[in-house]
Amino acid sequence: MREIFEAELRQVGDDLIEMSRLVESAITRAGTALLEADHQLAQEVIASDHAIDRLESTLDERCVHLLAQQAPVATDLRVIITALRISATMERMGDLARHVAEIARGRYPAQAVPPSARETFVKMNDAAVHVAQRMTSLLATRDLEDAAQLEQDDDLLDALHQDTFAATLSPEWTGTPQQTVDVTLLGRYYERFGDHGVSVARRITFLVTGDFEAEHARPEV
Amino acid sequence: MREIFEAELRQVGDDLIEMSRLVESAITRAGTALLEADHQLAQEVIASDHAIDRLESTLDERCVHLLAQQAPVATDLRVIITALRISATMERMGDLARHVAEIARGRYPAQAVPPSARETFVKMNDAAVHVAQRMTSLLATRDLEDAAQLEQDDDLLDALHQDTFAATLSPEWTGTPQQTVDVTLLGRYYERFGDHGVSVARRITFLVTGDFEAEHARPEV
Repeated sequence: MREIFEAELRQVGDDLIEMSRLVESAITRAGTALLEADHQLAQEVIASDHAIDRLESTLDERCVHLLAQQAPVATDLRVIITALRISATMERMGDLARHVAEIARGRYPAQAVPPSARETFVKMNDAAVHVAQRMTSLLATRDLEDAAQLEQDDDLLDALHQDTFAATLSPEWTGTPQQTVDVTLLGRYYERFGDHGVSVARRITFLVTGDFEAEHARPEV
Repeated sequence: MREIFEAELRQVGDDLIEMSRLVESAITRAGTALLEADHQLAQEVIASDHAIDRLESTLDERCVHLLAQQAPVATDLRVIITALRISATMERMGDLARHVAEIARGRYPAQAVPPSARETFVKMNDAAVHVAQRMTSLLATRDLEDAAQLEQDDDLLDALHQDTFAATLSPEWTGTPQQTVDVTLLGRYYERFGDHGVSVARRITFLVTGDFEAEHARPEV
């Protein structure tokens, strides 16, 4: 009985890593679609979001099944509850990558981001990809150094998010209302992406250290 | 033992209703703060968001404790898992109400919403308040008619969200970039508020009917 349970629990862990890899791929490709005005790639990101949603459903069912069949306690219980929460959070990260791709597709063949804001979004996308990469690594290794670095990437995202406001509100801003809207939404999507990454990192930290405070210290969003 | 469990389970239900009432109050006051440029009220909404966050933590701890101590199965297990998810969703709704209040506070003594978009936001806030009211009612009565009406309120929010884009992108739009940014973000906050309400309604529907599909049919966000 215990062996089956252990195998199921490992599968939950593997599914989370797989989900994180899909999110990593989605945000990486969404950023390229946005910055290169690549319609085909944008389509692919939008179409592949369903795979992340499906994996979340599978994972949730497995967790609920484990809770019902095995009545786990202590660490096992925490692992399963954490998995349920992390999968919901990563599903949202997939949605946000899709939203970036949707803006890229909606403006095609034009660039959604005007030249004056391009560098900010190059950096934002890099930071978001780093968040996703460290999330995958953290899920695989539970090395808390990844969690610390992920928080730094998110700090950078927050600073860059402020830069997007500084850009659209500066007297030099010559963007159209459409560009103002897009830069505002894209900034928000990337910023939320980072916040969700931090939420995942804190839940893993909670799992590793048992420090409940770490989990409930929310990023100010 | 069963009696204590039943009492704890009732407390979870009561906490969810209380949380929903706080969200209802937050969005109602945030809307007034926004539309009346009421700085004092905006401050109150921002300050009181902590109460929602605290209630979420309390509720989560109670649920995890129940899972660990009682190893519930079947309906009891579903109730507790659903409560965990709903509390996380309502916590986000509180954040979104706070964000509306933050924009109101940030523009004070000016109005954040220009006259040309005012009517749209009057309607958006009404719809969002209705979403919150029906959510409270649904949690208290589990009457699925509330869930159906909540979905209609959300449909209205989605349509109004499109109106905000139509406004800022119309040739008649004379708003400043700051107003374009604010209208874009406010529209997004209200739209997300509605989506979260729908998510809560679907989880309750799942609980009442046992229809797993209803829960996983996501609003397109």
